[in-house]
Amino acid sequence: MPGVYTQLDLSPNAFEQARQQRIATGDLLDLTSSNPTAQGLFFPPELLQQASEAFWATRRYQPDPHGNPAARTAICRYYAERTPGLELDVDDIFLTASTSEAYALLFALLADPGDNLLAPNVTYPLFEYLAELRQLELRPYPLNEAEGWRIDEAGLLAAANRRTRAVLIVSPHNPTGAVVSQPVAALAQLGLPVICDEVFAPFSYGVAHVPPLAALHPDLPVLTLNGISKLFALPDLKLGWIALNQAARSLAPRLELLNDTFLSANSLSQQLLPQLFSSGMPFVQGMVERVRHNLTLALTQLHNHPHIHARPPDGGYYLFPAIRGWEDEDALVHFLMQRGLLVHPGYFYGEVPGTHLMLSALTTPNVFAAGIERLRDCLKNP
Amino acid sequence: MPGVYTQLDLSPNAFEQARQQRIATGDLLDLTSSNPTAQGLFFPPELLQQASEAFWATRRYQPDPHGNPAARTAICRYYAERTPGLELDVDDIFLTASTSEAYALLFALLADPGDNLLAPNVTYPLFEYLAELRQLELRPYPLNEAEGWRIDEAGLLAAANRRTRAVLIVSPHNPTGAVVSQPVAALAQLGLPVICDEVFAPFSYGVAHVPPLAALHPDLPVLTLNGISKLFALPDLKLGWIALNQAARSLAPRLELLNDTFLSANSLSQQLLPQLFSSGMPFVQGMVERVRHNLTLALTQLHNHPHIHARPPDGGYYLFPAIRGWEDEDALVHFLMQRGLLVHPGYFYGEVPGTHLMLSALTTPNVFAAGIERLRDCLKNP
Ligand SMILES: Cc1ncc(COP(=O)(O)O)c(C=O)c1O
Ligand SMILES: Cc1ncc(COP(=O)(O)O)c(C=O)c1O
Repeated sequence: MPGVYTQLDLSPNAFEQARQQRIATGDLLDLTSSNPTAQGLFFPPELLQQASEAFWATRRYQPDPHGNPAARTAICRYYAERTPGLELDVDDIFLTASTSEAYALLFALLADPGDNLLAPNVTYPLFEYLAELRQLELRPYPLNEAEGWRIDEAGLLAAANRRTRAVLIVSPHNPTGAVVSQPVAALAQLGLPVICDEVFAPFSYGVAHVPPLAALHPDLPVLTLNGISKLFALPDLKLGWIALNQAARSLAPRLELLNDTFLSANSLSQQLLPQLFSSGMPFVQGMVERVRHNLTLALTQLHNHPHIHARPPDGGYYLFPAIRGWEDEDALVHFLMQRGLLVHPGYFYGEVPGTHLMLSALTTPNVFAAGIERLRDCLKNP
Repeated sequence: MPGVYTQLDLSPNAFEQARQQRIATGDLLDLTSSNPTAQGLFFPPELLQQASEAFWATRRYQPDPHGNPAARTAICRYYAERTPGLELDVDDIFLTASTSEAYALLFALLADPGDNLLAPNVTYPLFEYLAELRQLELRPYPLNEAEGWRIDEAGLLAAANRRTRAVLIVSPHNPTGAVVSQPVAALAQLGLPVICDEVFAPFSYGVAHVPPLAALHPDLPVLTLNGISKLFALPDLKLGWIALNQAARSLAPRLELLNDTFLSANSLSQQLLPQLFSSGMPFVQGMVERVRHNLTLALTQLHNHPHIHARPPDGGYYLFPAIRGWEDEDALVHFLMQRGLLVHPGYFYGEVPGTHLMLSALTTPNVFAAGIERLRDCLKNP
């Protein structure tokens, strides 16, 4: 098997050894975590406990290639509340085991081996692995850092060719935090299906709210991805979904067959979903406020820093600052690790000019504050 | 997208309408069910309830590309108890969201688009869909009905070519019930990796027990598939696994990356698994006894029937009798439906000479008995 699944070096490297040492000595400030339960963020357990009792008491397996109808109704209601005018039908929704699985299904739905998809550069690294499974080419399209990492439209158009089958959008974007708030002329011009990953939608920062791309581009087939990993901080319960807008509805019958091939979504998680939406929003709001608090603290602390250039993201829970005076991201990350600070290098997410770091503002506030302070001080005189 | 995902006729047909009518009038004996919860088989809910309480109380997401270590330890112990001498290590086990997902991962692990896999004819119809996703060819190998549907070894050898990457075995086989109890010379001769689906392993009937294929063929890379859908009658909790034998161990690092791409296995289901093994066996035993009771009843009732030829399966929970005097399976199934009996036609599972029906012995005993009686009587003078 060629490609990404064979390229990786699987042996522990010097960096990993340094990290293990810092963990052992108990002085590691980890600013990379996307795991809410490692950051003290727990969806109220009594709600989960209660809802699961009802599940066990009335358990009955009712496989449905779309997923549990009550769960889909709750999802439709969520979108209707977020965006009046965006009318989704329960049959436009497909429940999956995760957004990762949802991507794999959509890649198979929209493209054949040898076809290609346009993916943002930078972005979160899973896409390469998923594309490889279907032997699809991922053609990167540029983001414009100077304009808050918005999509470079000329670059997007130039990336497409006759074997391009879809455009991937992540909004809020991981890791840049850019939100697509306006229709994108180049998307309309391409006229291709758009897969839009909105898992970070609740986390708005620089923008007042995150509009679903399906509402901005009603004329394009938009396949929206979302799930409970980020929204409800429940990555362990494994539930994602795909929502088709009206222009994508003709794809539903084949997507139904694809989803029916796996039926991987856990029935308990499906049954919990209405309860998550109806009772979980105060918890979500608390999480959003933590992220906002952390982002504001970092932006204040790093303001006018001689080497760190961080700009307010539109949303999401990451910062992706540019670092001046360092050329080698590995050397930088290693340097910080030796000072007890764990961050991700920019190249984890793609290849763009300059040196970048990824910092997660989901982190427990006191750890995050200490980490930002250490980052600030360590890079003062490099 | 070509192939199976576009071939299916998605509109409800005359048969489905007849079925709905029978359901409405309340006189339908359904002998096709593989859904334990629809047949009154419920894993003790108090055990599930209790174990899940502990989960909520101590929830913490710890993603592991192999899956929960305690769950893998329980799986290793299960195999060690079933087959002394079959030594599996926890790192030989990979937890997945289902055996369906496990198949997809293994197809990607072992074969590239354009390659082929050998699959039994007949078999359960999922393989075609899974192969299509990776654009693999499924080359059927014959089973020998006269010899209890055992693998036709000359046919197996003849089916392989230089792009063959693996052999699929289902033991106990769905729907024929054949168990591979002895090493298969043709498998050794091919020397290819073998994917062996043992989800029906607890259900032995004609044989005293079902030996893991990995134990019969220690020199071949054997990738064993199993899960909780059939074993513990928990298809809704979505947990499967892959077990590599020693000869397959070199595949582990890439399988780890593949599984890490999805991480679809629900953490609660993973955490429940040790409890299922430690407390669930009396329930499993009850289920096995129901199936044996039903199979014996059917074989007794249908013994010497002029048109129905049913032979005792080695294991599994289906019967796959040959029907004489009927050429068209659709006509036969329709004829039975008009008499209130729902069965599956043989062609759902492949193309073999003769006319066959599939009957599920998982069915609630009184319904099963009534169904077998109706079948016997309806086909007396066709
Ligand atoms: C943009 C984005 N989409 C999807 C996911 C994964 O979501 P899931 O856990 O539902 O597979 C992640 C995880 O980091 C992500 O960053
Ligand atoms: C032989 C066989 N393997 C696997 C499965 C599916 O198992 P899972 O629910 O774990 O995907 C089935 C379902 O009928 C089956 O018959």
